[in-house]
Amino acid sequence: MAPEYEILTPATVPAYIDRTPTLNGIVDTSTLDVSEVGDGNLNLVFVCKDGNGDGICLKQSLPYVRLVGESWPLTPERVIAEARGLSAAADHVPDLVPAYYGVDEVNHVLAMENLMGWDMWRSQLNEGNAHPGVGEQLGRYVAALAFYTSFFTIDQGEIKERLAEAINPELCKITEDLVFTEPYIDVPNNSYVDELIPEIEGMRADATLRAQVGMLKYKFMTAGEALVHGDLHTGSVMVRQGDSGAECRVIDPEFCYYGPIGFDLGALFGNYLAARARAVVLDRPAAYQKWLADLGPETWNSFATEMRRLWPDRLDKTWTDSFLDTWLAQVEKDTIGFGGCKANRRIIGLAKVTDIQQLPHDEHVKAATMVLRTASTWIRERDKLETVAEANKVFDEVREEVLG
Amino acid sequence: MAPEYEILTPATVPAYIDRTPTLNGIVDTSTLDVSEVGDGNLNLVFVCKDGNGDGICLKQSLPYVRLVGESWPLTPERVIAEARGLSAAADHVPDLVPAYYGVDEVNHVLAMENLMGWDMWRSQLNEGNAHPGVGEQLGRYVAALAFYTSFFTIDQGEIKERLAEAINPELCKITEDLVFTEPYIDVPNNSYVDELIPEIEGMRADATLRAQVGMLKYKFMTAGEALVHGDLHTGSVMVRQGDSGAECRVIDPEFCYYGPIGFDLGALFGNYLAARARAVVLDRPAAYQKWLADLGPETWNSFATEMRRLWPDRLDKTWTDSFLDTWLAQVEKDTIGFGGCKANRRIIGLAKVTDIQQLPHDEHVKAATMVLRTASTWIRERDKLETVAEANKVFDEVREEVLG
Repeated sequence: MAPEYEILTPATVPAYIDRTPTLNGIVDTSTLDVSEVGDGNLNLVFVCKDGNGDGICLKQSLPYVRLVGESWPLTPERVIAEARGLSAAADHVPDLVPAYYGVDEVNHVLAMENLMGWDMWRSQLNEGNAHPGVGEQLGRYVAALAFYTSFFTIDQGEIKERLAEAINPELCKITEDLVFTEPYIDVPNNSYVDELIPEIEGMRADATLRAQVGMLKYKFMTAGEALVHGDLHTGSVMVRQGDSGAECRVIDPEFCYYGPIGFDLGALFGNYLAARARAVVLDRPAAYQKWLADLGPETWNSFATEMRRLWPDRLDKTWTDSFLDTWLAQVEKDTIGFGGCKANRRIIGLAKVTDIQQLPHDEHVKAATMVLRTASTWIRERDKLETVAEANKVFDEVREEVLG
Repeated sequence: MAPEYEILTPATVPAYIDRTPTLNGIVDTSTLDVSEVGDGNLNLVFVCKDGNGDGICLKQSLPYVRLVGESWPLTPERVIAEARGLSAAADHVPDLVPAYYGVDEVNHVLAMENLMGWDMWRSQLNEGNAHPGVGEQLGRYVAALAFYTSFFTIDQGEIKERLAEAINPELCKITEDLVFTEPYIDVPNNSYVDELIPEIEGMRADATLRAQVGMLKYKFMTAGEALVHGDLHTGSVMVRQGDSGAECRVIDPEFCYYGPIGFDLGALFGNYLAARARAVVLDRPAAYQKWLADLGPETWNSFATEMRRLWPDRLDKTWTDSFLDTWLAQVEKDTIGFGGCKANRRIIGLAKVTDIQQLPHDEHVKAATMVLRTASTWIRERDKLETVAEANKVFDEVREEVLG
């Protein structure tokens, strides 16, 4: 399947920038150094730096899933979804995303700030490096996206049009399959070491767990609450140590669509769980583990605090303060449940996480077991657990069980 | 605001039928008797009968709300929504809706079977006439619409397109305002006798009730589960005594959109409550009251039974039977809550129901009080009540309180 548009290479990028009016002047193309660094599954990513130290990043979507190859075609229109997600966040939390330079809908190229000197957060977590405050920043990111893309601030008639424009069926289907379906059935996409078989077979035989995963999948498929990032794991966050503390930038919102607000928070919470399990089996320093353990509540509290701060600006004041309390309690339960689904899939299904995969065998088995057991309890018991802080304690109990 | 299309009159209908190819031959226009019978708020309805006993019904949407007049403009495109709802039901439960003869998108005219000899169900309920089996039929109607317009049977990619096509913001806004917002605040659209003021002021001061009404409104605004009728009260159901028992036809799906499946069931349940309250204060015969009391559970059980019967035909068998059980339990709670909202608005807000309005003063106050108190308990306590059968018992307790 040959693409019907020009696929960029490092050699052709300078000329592309020269002939694209919106990109002129951002970098000096006569001194441009371009490298393709895409390590995701779906795209080419060109990092460009010029002789003056200026930069730009171009992301071009391929018409298939890169990880699998041309046998898995995928619409390149997803770059438009990503532009939608990036520009919405750039409007309201410009300090938490790369600057947005526009999208070329013909060649499926998104242009944005080049994050030179930033690291992927997952890599930093894998190394055991803390970035205090990033959890707070991510809670604020989710709150801003939720508040400013929902009917809390957008006219009821317009919000329906926006929801209709932003449907993203192909990328949603990837999530539906990989997050909610495949881990719980026997399909070739799954893979895991033999020691995990009893745990995973137990999950598949658990009718309550399967029903609750189904309810979360149903919510993912039907709840059009706000524009959500859709893939907000720790590999979609870039971090650095700035002058006044750690900073983050959220990238890669190509899965964005109108979905349940708890899904992004759950994605973070589920990925924090993998990072915690890694830190435990590697016996990281206590202060680091404490910081990691607090990330979930920190992110949740930041989200809730920011929603309360923004609440007086809602468009329709007939939404009461008591509604906000009740609504936050529901989003918190959703966060716990989605967190469980996001954690399980990273152990069982396609597209795993280095946090757990790159551990020595014995540590891998222990960490993976802790993640699966904690995550499954979150999914089953989220209504009883009620809070992210309570859900966090489940991990402590499971750790005792697994490590003794 | 003059309409930009031809508004039909009884005198112009025969010529309109003659020049509309899809309608030719259904009736003999040379002997046609036409009368305009629209008693709803939004449309002209032409009932046409010819000398041979054949008939057709034309429904034309006006560009404003008829009840209020030209000062409340409203898109006539809603006839397309109605055609969407009618044709979806006609495909799957043709025995429960009028035959569909197509839609004229230029003049906003929907053509369908003329239900000669049928009565509006609400009028029959007001008279104290039972139609056994109608509850079962309506449960089956909701189940068929839910199953065949949702991702249970429609490909994941297509369902998103259908949801996007079927957004119906203007009519949804009417429901959002009249059902979920206005009854709980002081606005000129509301009206009620002085004796109800303490009850209604108590509701407005009840933060839990307001929060829960908000959660139901939020679900109405964000849950795109299936194509729902959107206005399934007892005035949207026509009934008759057929050769093999009572029969019904569901009409007027112009509010249809992708919404929560419990909303239609709740609309029925809330309107049954008004009918029950009327029957109690008018001291209708015990057998009639028993039939009426059982309508809610009958409708719910029929819906659940039909969903279980259709379940093996779902597109994706990874949705487990345990999911169906859990999902039905959630829809049942939604039904109770939406039922409460639909009942309250009919007492307090714009567009009341004759069941309660046309009672003598003292009976009106008693019936209205019973409805408000029962409905508010349903909204607040739906998670604890769990089943329609349990919610039904709330009315028995409230009746004791109010009538002693």
